Amino acid sequence: MSEGKANPQLWQKGLPLDEAIHRFTVGDDPVLDQRLLKYDALGSAAHALALAHAGLLAESDAGALAQALSGIAARAGRGELRINPEQEDCHTCIEALLTQQLGDAGRRIHLGRSRNDQVILALRLYMRDALLDTAARTAQLADAFISFAKQHADLPLPGYTHLRRAMPSSFGLWAGGFAAGLAEELQALQSVYARLDRCPLGAAAGFGAPLPLDREYVAALLGFAAVQTSPADVMNSRGRHELALVNALASIGLVLEKFLWDAALYCMPELGYLKLPDAFTTGSSIMPQKRNPDVLELARGRCRELRGHALMLQELAGGLPSGYHRDLQLLKQPLFMSLDTAYGLLDILLRLMPDLQVDEKRARAACGDDLYAAQEATRLAQEGMPFRDAYQQVARQLLDGSFKPDRSASLCTHLGGVGNLGLERIAADCAALKHWIGETRKRLQACESQVWNSKMSGT
Amino acid sequence: MSEGKANPQLWQKGLPLDEAIHRFTVGDDPVLDQRLLKYDALGSAAHALALAHAGLLAESDAGALAQALSGIAARAGRGELRINPEQEDCHTCIEALLTQQLGDAGRRIHLGRSRNDQVILALRLYMRDALLDTAARTAQLADAFISFAKQHADLPLPGYTHLRRAMPSSFGLWAGGFAAGLAEELQALQSVYARLDRCPLGAAAGFGAPLPLDREYVAALLGFAAVQTSPADVMNSRGRHELALVNALASIGLVLEKFLWDAALYCMPELGYLKLPDAFTTGSSIMPQKRNPDVLELARGRCRELRGHALMLQELAGGLPSGYHRDLQLLKQPLFMSLDTAYGLLDILLRLMPDLQVDEKRARAACGDDLYAAQEATRLAQEGMPFRDAYQQVARQLLDGSFKPDRSASLCTHLGGVGNLGLERIAADCAALKHWIGETRKRLQACESQVWNSKMSGT
Amino acid sequence: MSEGKANPQLWQKGLPLDEAIHRFTVGDDPVLDQRLLKYDALGSAAHALALAHAGLLAESDAGALAQALSGIAARAGRGELRINPEQEDCHTCIEALLTQQLGDAGRRIHLGRSRNDQVILALRLYMRDALLDTAARTAQLADAFISFAKQHADLPLPGYTHLRRAMPSSFGLWAGGFAAGLAEELQALQSVYARLDRCPLGAAAGFGAPLPLDREYVAALLGFAAVQTSPADVMNSRGRHELALVNALASIGLVLEKFLWDAALYCMPELGYLKLPDAFTTGSSIMPQKRNPDVLELARGRCRELRGHALMLQELAGGLPSGYHRDLQLLKQPLFMSLDTAYGLLDILLRLMPDLQVDEKRARAACGDDLYAAQEATRLAQEGMPFRDAYQQVARQLLDGSFKPDRSASLCTHLGGVGNLGLERIAADCAALKHWIGETRKRLQACESQVWNSKMSGT
Amino acid sequence: MSEGKANPQLWQKGLPLDEAIHRFTVGDDPVLDQRLLKYDALGSAAHALALAHAGLLAESDAGALAQALSGIAARAGRGELRINPEQEDCHTCIEALLTQQLGDAGRRIHLGRSRNDQVILALRLYMRDALLDTAARTAQLADAFISFAKQHADLPLPGYTHLRRAMPSSFGLWAGGFAAGLAEELQALQSVYARLDRCPLGAAAGFGAPLPLDREYVAALLGFAAVQTSPADVMNSRGRHELALVNALASIGLVLEKFLWDAALYCMPELGYLKLPDAFTTGSSIMPQKRNPDVLELARGRCRELRGHALMLQELAGGLPSGYHRDLQLLKQPLFMSLDTAYGLLDILLRLMPDLQVDEKRARAACGDDLYAAQEATRLAQEGMPFRDAYQQVARQLLDGSFKPDRSASLCTHLGGVGNLGLERIAADCAALKHWIGETRKRLQACESQVWNSKMSGT
Repeated sequence: MSEGKANPQLWQKGLPLDEAIHRFTVGDDPVLDQRLLKYDALGSAAHALALAHAGLLAESDAGALAQALSGIAARAGRGELRINPEQEDCHTCIEALLTQQLGDAGRRIHLGRSRNDQVILALRLYMRDALLDTAARTAQLADAFISFAKQHADLPLPGYTHLRRAMPSSFGLWAGGFAAGLAEELQALQSVYARLDRCPLGAAAGFGAPLPLDREYVAALLGFAAVQTSPADVMNSRGRHELALVNALASIGLVLEKFLWDAALYCMPELGYLKLPDAFTTGSSIMPQKRNPDVLELARGRCRELRGHALMLQELAGGLPSGYHRDLQLLKQPLFMSLDTAYGLLDILLRLMPDLQVDEKRARAACGDDLYAAQEATRLAQEGMPFRDAYQQVARQLLDGSFKPDRSASLCTHLGGVGNLGLERIAADCAALKHWIGETRKRLQACESQVWNSKMSGT
Repeated sequence: MSEGKANPQLWQKGLPLDEAIHRFTVGDDPVLDQRLLKYDALGSAAHALALAHAGLLAESDAGALAQALSGIAARAGRGELRINPEQEDCHTCIEALLTQQLGDAGRRIHLGRSRNDQVILALRLYMRDALLDTAARTAQLADAFISFAKQHADLPLPGYTHLRRAMPSSFGLWAGGFAAGLAEELQALQSVYARLDRCPLGAAAGFGAPLPLDREYVAALLGFAAVQTSPADVMNSRGRHELALVNALASIGLVLEKFLWDAALYCMPELGYLKLPDAFTTGSSIMPQKRNPDVLELARGRCRELRGHALMLQELAGGLPSGYHRDLQLLKQPLFMSLDTAYGLLDILLRLMPDLQVDEKRARAACGDDLYAAQEATRLAQEGMPFRDAYQQVARQLLDGSFKPDRSASLCTHLGGVGNLGLERIAADCAALKHWIGETRKRLQACESQVWNSKMSGT
Repeated sequence: MSEGKANPQLWQKGLPLDEAIHRFTVGDDPVLDQRLLKYDALGSAAHALALAHAGLLAESDAGALAQALSGIAARAGRGELRINPEQEDCHTCIEALLTQQLGDAGRRIHLGRSRNDQVILALRLYMRDALLDTAARTAQLADAFISFAKQHADLPLPGYTHLRRAMPSSFGLWAGGFAAGLAEELQALQSVYARLDRCPLGAAAGFGAPLPLDREYVAALLGFAAVQTSPADVMNSRGRHELALVNALASIGLVLEKFLWDAALYCMPELGYLKLPDAFTTGSSIMPQKRNPDVLELARGRCRELRGHALMLQELAGGLPSGYHRDLQLLKQPLFMSLDTAYGLLDILLRLMPDLQVDEKRARAACGDDLYAAQEATRLAQEGMPFRDAYQQVARQLLDGSFKPDRSASLCTHLGGVGNLGLERIAADCAALKHWIGETRKRLQACESQVWNSKMSGT
Repeated sequence: MSEGKANPQLWQKGLPLDEAIHRFTVGDDPVLDQRLLKYDALGSAAHALALAHAGLLAESDAGALAQALSGIAARAGRGELRINPEQEDCHTCIEALLTQQLGDAGRRIHLGRSRNDQVILALRLYMRDALLDTAARTAQLADAFISFAKQHADLPLPGYTHLRRAMPSSFGLWAGGFAAGLAEELQALQSVYARLDRCPLGAAAGFGAPLPLDREYVAALLGFAAVQTSPADVMNSRGRHELALVNALASIGLVLEKFLWDAALYCMPELGYLKLPDAFTTGSSIMPQKRNPDVLELARGRCRELRGHALMLQELAGGLPSGYHRDLQLLKQPLFMSLDTAYGLLDILLRLMPDLQVDEKRARAACGDDLYAAQEATRLAQEGMPFRDAYQQVARQLLDGSFKPDRSASLCTHLGGVGNLGLERIAADCAALKHWIGETRKRLQACESQVWNSKMSGT
């Protein structure tokens, strides 16, 4: 990892063998696993309750464990818990704390699960939350595009194809397109959630646990829609799930990259349809006349980076026989990096959109008569002239300077057209998704509370 | 493209400029577009009906166009229609035929659409069908895995992690895992279908058509669930949709790659749990003693190739401002290649699975007492001994050769365990998907028939 | 592969098992291998001579084989030889011809080599030629950029950073940069040639041949600088070599993509520094006012496609243990496709560059006083004013409209600057590479002639 | 980036706009740039000397700057210098220190360069060193493979193709292949060095600096072979250079991945040709009988990760017009991560190789008579029987159990064969590269010393 050490290449030289191997196998886990602490605690508490439910652990022990894990999760949430490099990962860190606090009861929690299904559970709980966080931001950003589109619904903008002015468009049509794209991506996120919505616990090392565990009980405790039935599939889905989520992020990036490219072009002085607020531009250290759209460019680069993370995960997720192999540990870093990239990208655009300014004068000026050539030919065709003839007539008029289109005729009134943007439909799609996000979060929070507080039932 | 020309590098040398540019811009479209002929015909017929519906075309003309296009689609379906290289693509080929057959009526079909939304519609109709074809094969293959799992449900197989024998498993558990993985991927395909299930027609060049078209009418004609409202989003979704589909194919590949890797290992003479039918092996040209699992290896390579196609599409789908750019033409080839790869892969595995043989003797022999170490330790823990102590006791017994596990105790009876595979749940998931595939196909066929035969309503 | 079959998904349904497996394993080889025929013939002729040299084949047989193979290569070169689908690949096709023509002597050529080192040799000979072809075109294109740069050496052009006008530049500086980039890539191609410049023959299946072959003799015959010593490495380098070549093509694409993006922007009406010849633009089917830069866009897309091929090869080249596995057969297609993409891209740009026109008036008009702000501040700093103060003074003048830079002072006279482009240095680099290409080709042709005509020595 | 924050998603919520934008634009630079401090200091010192050389800075000021920068580099080397998040990057950090120490002289260093060519220079100096570090480790590891190969030169090992025992090989042949592969990669690294061996300084923002700088003087000071002539190419090579280096690392990974896959298979109990030292295995938390080869697996995963970094850089390096854009800032992270991955991978294998043990008994036992089938057929063919007949005879004997090959005949004596490994040739290639590495490092150190101590000449 890129810790920027002055001499990263030297650290291993003088180390004793065991220490060198320890560092190689641990890798960045102590840092990466910080964000899993809470989820491993939650999954462990549910496992403790499931053991008690199956008569494999005293109810009082289960209650004590849930309470202790609740405290651990709370400390992790406040950033007060650090995984010690010697502890390797979040699992050992939590085990150490439990054993320290509860003695034997702490040690009893490991019955019937393996490290592998423990990490899969923690990751699944984490991804479930991270997906909802991403979806919430994406929905907000879709709303911001809709607001922008409504605000400038009727303001004309030249529609470009091939980087050439093509046909009359509007700021409303342009911005509404990004809202629509994000709405589609929100639905895609929802379907990735369905992949994640099955509980892996009980798979143990991939062949089940030789204990009478009630997998449906624990799945319900953790708010999953179902059990991920096959323990073999639990192991084999490692990588596939991460990739599905990161592919969804990269697809959001595909939507936003087009917006960012457009914005970078539209705020070129040569076009000038958009103006960036000063806070979003950067001066040059040597050119006094310049303000650069660094934020747009970095955000655009982040969209490519999201694709890069997806490519990385494709490499890491494939190429292995079934079952657990230690290579899979490497999946965590690109997953986390990808989510952080997405958060940063969405957050900065949420800040930008309300402040993005249009230059109405330049936009109107750019909508010259030429832009209406296709519409005029269509109008003539609609009046009866064969389209080929109409096209030729307009072309001749354009050449000899006599072209005068009937611009009043140009409003596209069909659904989605300049005169009938259908923003309320796009908004309705987003609203449905926001509702789903809200309900899901509420439900998961209720489950979580119940797990943390189930000491009650244990006493 | 890889046409294997003897001197592909020489073809352009002597060409006149216009011819060289023609070849460069046309590329492989005349070949690639063969598979779009039928879909462009269908989309065009629907557009003709929509024009008539809006009073922009005589009903008799619309009927004649639908009939002629029906004939074109039929010829294309029988492989009797070839796109001439001079025609560049399927659109020009069809236009030429219509004009030849119907004169002016043939020319009137172009009103109110652009080449760009025409190709997007044809691609969407194609992808919709191709997705259903892929899903149907995937569902069949999932069934084949379930059959295999049922046939050998109780036959023991060492469960491997880290390529080391780990715990007792069974052929049933192993094969059931792949069925479960495919069932999940089927659901993912279904959600990609939802992306494709909106009608782009009417977007024209990305800014709508200046005509009173009824986009909901044409969407219903073509069996879409809805209109893709924003014309800007229609253009911007080019690439995103192709990628979503190919990502889904690559994810199916991730499931199958693990099976193929396992199978390649399990039929190594050193392990020998599986036997490949002779038809699936290839002899060596110089080593008389060898039979090679070439089919497994090529199929495994095809899984990596699917990822490669996804990577290619990531490159091609990104990096552009919004609106149409000619770069997007290049999306077709990797989409088609990816689908063909997936078809070939799924088809060959559908052939393999019923013939794949197990070597019961070697599988049983490989399940030695060692394999039961974790279960024995768990059993002791369940009886009250702390797990750490049980683990140590088993480890000592393994070392001194006294380890004798109670193998009868080992059956995992929880859901998904060796003794309770839950195959019926996985089968139920697949059955639901198969039902959806069947219903959807039926519905689309009904829509198609209605479009082809709508000359009736026109007369 | 994308043969555009109407129903590619149906072909395998009714096939008997053996036929289905045959098609799956053969794949596209009969088509793909067309371009390997010549190289397999050459490698086989050299192998025959090596067998004779080692006393393992009669000299007269070796001579007859070389002569027959020379004829086969000639037929292949004229496009008169087609690999029959039943023959699977170029190797079987050639073997069949040899046996047909020479009987037993035809069969004797297989002694001491395996199919695997045969295909590796054919591919290496092919890649060696293809690399030189690519390099020759790249060198020509570098020259074309230098010519363009010389022609417009002093014509001012605004230098852009962040898509904003930044500092004074010139068409000479702009175009010279691409020539310099290509020169660097030519050197990179030369280093890939060094990888390929070792003879794999004799590796047999990866463990050597149990015969006293003189590997240095055959390496010299085929014009290789050395033997690739380790037979294990010969097998392991499959994929690595293809990737090295395709990475080099993708890197050429990185240079050209920037040119193509710049050109697409500079010929936007809003900027207008470049004018595309009419032959390189395409009209719109519905917008009479438009000419689109389709050629630039497709060429730009081809640069992304080259990266896609590199990504595909990364997927296919990795993930396997050492030794031959049938997965490796899949490496051929992306290698060939990548080369064809590169040829098409380089060829079209070779056609474009001489005709690319500049609009001097608009370019000069775009070089306003603002562009000289940094230079003026530097000039003031050079006269003694601290740079920060100079920057502030210029900034103030820009704001109040009083900024009047001394534009005569602006010529950068250091090496590479606007006033001292150093094009002759870049041209010298290219010339050295062109010399190397020419000499290498001459040497290889001499070797080839000697192999074909070695029947003399055999009689 | 993956800092493992408990709630990375929350950090931006409450921030004032300027602070949020600051964080977004700065990104991870303060951490990433730590490793550039030394190189930016060195490049800055050379620039100061170049300014003095051109009469644009007092010699005493240049000397003082070089001395101060030498101190800064030394502190950075000892890890005593931390870039403050407010400082954004290494450049501002160093500027602040210089201004603090030297006042006006500190401010004068910025004349004639831009931030862009400053970072390009620092990166180039860094990559040059990092490449040499990687090459040195790679050469050491090639030596370790050669030592292993020599130690077990004659110990038989079954040669595998298609994961099937194919022909007689040896540990020497097997390990020698990896040494040969690494030797080839070392040559590839050397050619990447040639790309980096040109001095970018003087390009300023990509259009040169309006000052009479002597670019050849500063290139020589910094030990570059030449000036990178075109300032436009300097900017355009950003990304291309990073990718070239990371592609080379990924190609090293392709060599090592095969070794790691082989080793993972060969130490499976079912094969057992290799034994891992205990320190390189990890126990299971629940399976007392297991020792897992985690180190091999993680190292294998790191090879895939290197390809992932290359894919990421392909995404980030492309897709932009020429000139600087802020997106390019994102290139640093994957470059650094890739190098760290490579260091870790090479270092752990350097530790493993001397301790890797062979199981002679199992290896010999695995070399049964079958393995000699091809050799026996070849021997018969060499004695005059047509190879097809010999093949059939051997096949019959294998079937009826009468096959008794002449195993003594089997030694391949040609170059590279089991009996003539040619390890000295591979070793000679490595030695030449090691010599080059050593000489280059010496030369660069001499240049660096001269820059740091040039205050002498300045006083």
